[in-house]
Amino acid sequence: MSDITLDIIKDISITSPSKIVLLVMDGLGGLPDPRTGKTELETARTFNLDQLAAQGNCGLSEPVAPGVTPGSAPGHLSLFGYDPLIYSIKRGVLEAVGIDFDLMRGDVAARGNFCTIDDKGLVTDRRAGRVSDGKCAELAKLLDGQVFDGVKVLVQPVREHRFVAVFRGDNLVPEVTDSDPLQTGAPPKKIEPLAPGADRLAKVANQFLEKARAILASHYPANMALLRGFSKHPDIPTISEIYKLKPAAIASYPMYRGLAKLVGMEVLRTGKSIEEEFQTLKQNYGNYDYFFIHVKGTDTAGEDGNFDAKVRVIEQFDRALPQVLSLSPDVIIVTGDHSTPTLFQGHSWHPVPFLIHSKWCRPDGIKKFGERACASGSLGTFPAKRTMLLAMAHAVKLTKYGA
Amino acid sequence: MSDITLDIIKDISITSPSKIVLLVMDGLGGLPDPRTGKTELETARTFNLDQLAAQGNCGLSEPVAPGVTPGSAPGHLSLFGYDPLIYSIKRGVLEAVGIDFDLMRGDVAARGNFCTIDDKGLVTDRRAGRVSDGKCAELAKLLDGQVFDGVKVLVQPVREHRFVAVFRGDNLVPEVTDSDPLQTGAPPKKIEPLAPGADRLAKVANQFLEKARAILASHYPANMALLRGFSKHPDIPTISEIYKLKPAAIASYPMYRGLAKLVGMEVLRTGKSIEEEFQTLKQNYGNYDYFFIHVKGTDTAGEDGNFDAKVRVIEQFDRALPQVLSLSPDVIIVTGDHSTPTLFQGHSWHPVPFLIHSKWCRPDGIKKFGERACASGSLGTFPAKRTMLLAMAHAVKLTKYGA
Repeated sequence: MSDITLDIIKDISITSPSKIVLLVMDGLGGLPDPRTGKTELETARTFNLDQLAAQGNCGLSEPVAPGVTPGSAPGHLSLFGYDPLIYSIKRGVLEAVGIDFDLMRGDVAARGNFCTIDDKGLVTDRRAGRVSDGKCAELAKLLDGQVFDGVKVLVQPVREHRFVAVFRGDNLVPEVTDSDPLQTGAPPKKIEPLAPGADRLAKVANQFLEKARAILASHYPANMALLRGFSKHPDIPTISEIYKLKPAAIASYPMYRGLAKLVGMEVLRTGKSIEEEFQTLKQNYGNYDYFFIHVKGTDTAGEDGNFDAKVRVIEQFDRALPQVLSLSPDVIIVTGDHSTPTLFQGHSWHPVPFLIHSKWCRPDGIKKFGERACASGSLGTFPAKRTMLLAMAHAVKLTKYGA
Repeated sequence: MSDITLDIIKDISITSPSKIVLLVMDGLGGLPDPRTGKTELETARTFNLDQLAAQGNCGLSEPVAPGVTPGSAPGHLSLFGYDPLIYSIKRGVLEAVGIDFDLMRGDVAARGNFCTIDDKGLVTDRRAGRVSDGKCAELAKLLDGQVFDGVKVLVQPVREHRFVAVFRGDNLVPEVTDSDPLQTGAPPKKIEPLAPGADRLAKVANQFLEKARAILASHYPANMALLRGFSKHPDIPTISEIYKLKPAAIASYPMYRGLAKLVGMEVLRTGKSIEEEFQTLKQNYGNYDYFFIHVKGTDTAGEDGNFDAKVRVIEQFDRALPQVLSLSPDVIIVTGDHSTPTLFQGHSWHPVPFLIHSKWCRPDGIKKFGERACASGSLGTFPAKRTMLLAMAHAVKLTKYGA
């Protein structure tokens, strides 16, 4: 099917004072507990969510395609209105995003490892014995901020042996090979260009690694660094450019702040709990017209296989919800970026419960927010990338298409 | 996602004596009246529609994409089986379509304004004081039918200061600039070509406007004309070419007759009421195998915000329906081109109630034709452009795809 393009959406989007709040419970969708036949969401007592569902529209959203399990990046890109099969976040950039690094358009990021080499220069441990986070930060600092041929190299620790290297300079072409040999007993590889114009980055990266060898020589076992997964800021058109919105993100985990930044959201300082996140919404409510709020606990409990913990997070969310409702946003959406059933203990492909609430909804009579109820909702099972259009429509921020 | 193409449909379409009747209630979809919780369609007593729904299949159709509010043109193109994101009707052509102008393939149409210029040639009123419809018709006639460089210029009044100019000649390229300066205090602009081959149209249009200046000189305040939005007949493959149908349109409003003509339907003379339209169907039933019947009243009532009036139009439609049923069409479809909820007082994005009735339906047990009932129908929420394939299939006018 020919798809509506971001260019068309740009044409029909208008600004207005109405406000959109997107509430994402990470990994919300689940599977039934065999003892009760109910999913985590169906088990949770969710008075407020049920009421929103009854007044709004429900459905099931599919982040990528039926049967496809999304990572966090495609799961969120979809909810932000981007086709995750068109816009992808590659390795190095994702690593930078994951530590909430302030990546700029044009930057090239690579994943780094501190490693051990022997006196012949062969890699003996690709992870340098998994050095401590503190040691990682100390070593990263030694490498950070050097300039080679006009390209600044920013180095930030991730954890243990892992770091991010960001190359900042004009017209960098990211198609270069890895230096990581991906095995022991081999020397680090020379980085080679793979595309026209990539020789400059390859040269700079090799210079950086030679310098790193010298700097790290006295830090055995972390006496060398390896780089892989060079990739460039994806240069995604921003939410503001497409939808003429002023968007803000409220997320306590760095990965989600990073993803929000990539699409041009302003990231607000917030606390770790759901209540603190909702408090941040209240404090900033006047300054933006689109809010993305991310709740991590559902996914964590799902990954841990802790059914009751996931139920508790959902109930905690529901109890805190009146803080959001008291602001009377024109559009409220509650959904997840994917399913993380506790029985499955990981991200899964199952479609995700979705509800939208606005005075312009044609209520579909769903009484309880849950997977099976949503399957009977009037939104049907739909691509998650439609979320933005639904939000914009119900906020009356879209004009007619065609006369 | 890859889509079934018109070429494939062409390959599998066959002729047969079976007949399809597409009944479009413009702006059919609504929103619930807060006092009763029921939409216009749910409120209306619709014995005949309910019976059709019970015997057929229901669903909700989406004209363009979830959340996107369609204009009349994309709304109808969808129902006629064309992807409204691929086939679009541009400004000038739409203006011609709106007055039911008999546009031919190859024609270029532009929107025209009579305007006022001062003795320096500067525009002082872009609308010439909104001259009367009668004056507009009189002036249009003065400009109509002139030939420049083998290109005939047809001029037809729209209303007040507005007219349509259609340029008829071989190989006209429509990419030219407007002459309308879109502000007062500036002279009309010279029309310039924007694409290879467009210089001929630009030259002819400039000659036409110079001649108009001379002809209109004595008709102050309408002493000049402005043109904008040049666009060409979209050259859409016709319904007959694709589906091997002999299609007829029954519509009392010019816009819908015009849209039907664009896709190659024969437009039948009819009266203003639903009963007269159905009478026209009866009289011509033997001569065609596809009928598009357009009912305007639902949309008008919706735009006016008159809930009861919309309910009455639907009830009137239902009472008249036995006239159609007595002909026993092989396929009857009842739907809208978009929603126009009376609460919203305009076109909206809400999916549209849809029913198809044929002896080959697998009934889905819906008892009442209404928005919420349709949401539970077996057709689900589906793109409106699938309407033609559903009609053709249930009329057994499609052969197998693949062996």
